[in-house]
Amino acid sequence: MKTGIAAILTVLLGVAGLPAQQKQVPAATDPVEQYVVAHRQEVLQEFTRLLAVPNVASDTENIQKNADALIAILQKRGLKTQLLQLENAPSAVFAELPAVPGKRTVIFYAHYDGQPVQKRDWKQDPWQPVTVGDRIYARSASDDKAAIVGLLTALDALQARHQEPSINLKFFFEGEEEAGSPHLDKLLAKYAGFLKSDLWVICDGPAYQNGQPLLVFGSRGVVTAQITAFGPNRPLHSGHYGNWAPNPIVEIAQLIAKLRTTEGEITIPHFYDPVRPLTEAEKNALKDLPNLDAQLKNEFGLGRSEGQSSLADQIMKPALNLDRIEGGGTGPNPANAVPSSATAYIDFRMVPNQTPEIVQEQVEGYLRELGFYLVHTPPAPAERLEHPRLLQITWGPGYPPQRTAVDAPVSKAFIAAEKTATGDALLVMPTLGGSTPSFLFEQQFKTPVVLLPIANFDNNQHAANENIRVEYLMNGIRIYAAVFANLGKYWR
Amino acid sequence: MKTGIAAILTVLLGVAGLPAQQKQVPAATDPVEQYVVAHRQEVLQEFTRLLAVPNVASDTENIQKNADALIAILQKRGLKTQLLQLENAPSAVFAELPAVPGKRTVIFYAHYDGQPVQKRDWKQDPWQPVTVGDRIYARSASDDKAAIVGLLTALDALQARHQEPSINLKFFFEGEEEAGSPHLDKLLAKYAGFLKSDLWVICDGPAYQNGQPLLVFGSRGVVTAQITAFGPNRPLHSGHYGNWAPNPIVEIAQLIAKLRTTEGEITIPHFYDPVRPLTEAEKNALKDLPNLDAQLKNEFGLGRSEGQSSLADQIMKPALNLDRIEGGGTGPNPANAVPSSATAYIDFRMVPNQTPEIVQEQVEGYLRELGFYLVHTPPAPAERLEHPRLLQITWGPGYPPQRTAVDAPVSKAFIAAEKTATGDALLVMPTLGGSTPSFLFEQQFKTPVVLLPIANFDNNQHAANENIRVEYLMNGIRIYAAVFANLGKYWR
Repeated sequence: MKTGIAAILTVLLGVAGLPAQQKQVPAATDPVEQYVVAHRQEVLQEFTRLLAVPNVASDTENIQKNADALIAILQKRGLKTQLLQLENAPSAVFAELPAVPGKRTVIFYAHYDGQPVQKRDWKQDPWQPVTVGDRIYARSASDDKAAIVGLLTALDALQARHQEPSINLKFFFEGEEEAGSPHLDKLLAKYAGFLKSDLWVICDGPAYQNGQPLLVFGSRGVVTAQITAFGPNRPLHSGHYGNWAPNPIVEIAQLIAKLRTTEGEITIPHFYDPVRPLTEAEKNALKDLPNLDAQLKNEFGLGRSEGQSSLADQIMKPALNLDRIEGGGTGPNPANAVPSSATAYIDFRMVPNQTPEIVQEQVEGYLRELGFYLVHTPPAPAERLEHPRLLQITWGPGYPPQRTAVDAPVSKAFIAAEKTATGDALLVMPTLGGSTPSFLFEQQFKTPVVLLPIANFDNNQHAANENIRVEYLMNGIRIYAAVFANLGKYWR
Repeated sequence: MKTGIAAILTVLLGVAGLPAQQKQVPAATDPVEQYVVAHRQEVLQEFTRLLAVPNVASDTENIQKNADALIAILQKRGLKTQLLQLENAPSAVFAELPAVPGKRTVIFYAHYDGQPVQKRDWKQDPWQPVTVGDRIYARSASDDKAAIVGLLTALDALQARHQEPSINLKFFFEGEEEAGSPHLDKLLAKYAGFLKSDLWVICDGPAYQNGQPLLVFGSRGVVTAQITAFGPNRPLHSGHYGNWAPNPIVEIAQLIAKLRTTEGEITIPHFYDPVRPLTEAEKNALKDLPNLDAQLKNEFGLGRSEGQSSLADQIMKPALNLDRIEGGGTGPNPANAVPSSATAYIDFRMVPNQTPEIVQEQVEGYLRELGFYLVHTPPAPAERLEHPRLLQITWGPGYPPQRTAVDAPVSKAFIAAEKTATGDALLVMPTLGGSTPSFLFEQQFKTPVVLLPIANFDNNQHAANENIRVEYLMNGIRIYAAVFANLGKYWR
């Protein structure tokens, strides 16, 4: 169920055909801006050297070369480093500056591994970075080595003018995010001492589709369910047995119709009870988000959207999604037969304070109320005979939602700090529609989590010819530097 | 859409585990019985010689050998024969006895071709007939060469005692029924002069599952529809876009829920209006049919049936069957995505006086009433954008139902004539649940049609090791002879 943060942000933001300009670029009189301009070549050289190391998580030898290279560039800057290791997993790279008592500690997450490549689809070798126009093309150019180089360059910019960061800095660079972070929970637990902080900042993903800088305060949780209805033990001729042998497709369709409307409203009794109402701050943040619905509908070929409100508003609510439905086999011509089963594949997206456990209880309770007998493994023939209305329900793994209050002191401080670079162009999204393991950080460390993406949305993330627009990298550096320099000032 | 009559009867009656004895066998004092006993070996020899000619419709050379063999055994009996030919189609074989003015003319249909074979699944060569116990094993042993030999032997039995048939006899033996009768309508039209009669008797299929002899007076019509609902033009991440991007699986499920209930009741307005009520005679016939529901439910692993009434009662009504549903792809793990389309495959079974045209009009009218915009070919992107509720509906070929009144003079006469052989064991089914092209005969010739099956239901029809129980063949001969001898007496 774990879905890479980058993967999720890609899908969210991977929309072509929308304007892609960063707005409200700070004036050239800014000291960070001066550093960026003066050291542009140096920064890009370090970046492309790092991009030249192949970085698929399963490529054990090269992935370790990446970790070693990171250790080297971190140590060069005077950071104390540590390889965080688990058996049969790529090392994570940890680094920190000496802590100054009385300052908040903030840990910045990025990942140094990249998606596997199909070399034939690339115009170049994915690990031989090439600059074309205003873009650098290479695997991980935007996902997610730009964040790493951006963070370290931001630190350079501060060090160049002998400016102490306003916060104690820690870095955590994961080496298998694109492989689904299978060891992340264990790493966090094992190295909890190193990783302790007052805030996690997830540096991954692209900015808003219209190019505005973005700060995201959470993500929806997810849990999947597979529900099967049964008909005869073998397909039966629909002429001879149709409207006598129970049709499992009809059973499952009628069931779906009882679970939700075509407007996205979930009709499971009490489903919304645990949902905590939007705060005034969340409502205000939503109001400030540019509504891209019209463009998105056009882009996706949609004549309508569900629910009468904007995408940003809709993802503040839970969702019941039908991902797949099966019944009656596949192939060119369906038999005219009553099939022996039909299955709906559902995913629930949850918002605070829902949990997978609550959802499971509500769904199963409702199904029983509707008269169904539930089993969790394939029913025996005798069970099918005995229980005329029988469903098999199989729950997949899931995790809860996570949302940091947009008006928490840390959030207000973060927004204020970032705005010193972006001005009012900064957009605040209270949640991502998708699900990230951000709850893992919150759960392990009881700290807030924010997501801070910097890449251009049209970066071909996960695909061939991945790229970053140099201006987005430079803006990222400005944003990170602003956070380093100012977060501690605003966060008292 | 055309489905072989034999295929349909197989599926209807292909139920294992039920008693398989013929009942009410006539006494040995009957002259036909005496002929059958005396000539048993001769009959079986002629039967096995015919079974030894390979008879797959696409095997042009052998299929013609079958036709030639039939011509020979028909001429041997003094019948006038005619090959009925169409280009690129197996010949049909026509035969008749000289007509006696004033007598009704009845044409008996059977087919001499058989299903293709998978030789490795057979215990023997499918065209080298083998007798094991009370059964003869060979391709077409029951489907449908038994009917041909049965009909001709019945004629022999009458001729042996110099008894004139009570009706003028015609025979029509088709050579591509198992290939779906693709030229049947054209053959009937081209040779309408030869084929003119007062009644068509379809000699194909097995007796009732409990072994009782069976007479069937019609079949349900059929028409298929494929309905597709559309979502985004490509699958969208269900976290980021779920409950905003319209989910086509939900659209199609909600639609199915509006078309019919889980009890088989069709909720399309006015759908039942054209259905003519059951006649008293049909109701009485239904009452007399042994209710095998409990056994069938057990056999098919069903904890319930739809609609609160017996199978025989249910098939007197139209049906809306969901044959297949698709959406969200196939494969081991569905993506958590809002799919771009979902499709329901439906077949409608019709009863008099419904027609495919009426059903199409009702369905499309209702869908429009529900607010859908309908297209009949894949919609262009602009159409999807313009019409928020859009469905593509594709109708398959179909044909209307056919039912001969069970209390028509011809029907009463037929029942009475057949009962001279079966006694009261004869079961009358007003209709088959499945669809046969029986309407083709009715339509071309404006004559009634009855279906007269004789094989044991456990005959492995269409499968390996097809067989007929010799007693069922012998009973078939008795039944045919009774019809030849007596139908004209009762049908005035």
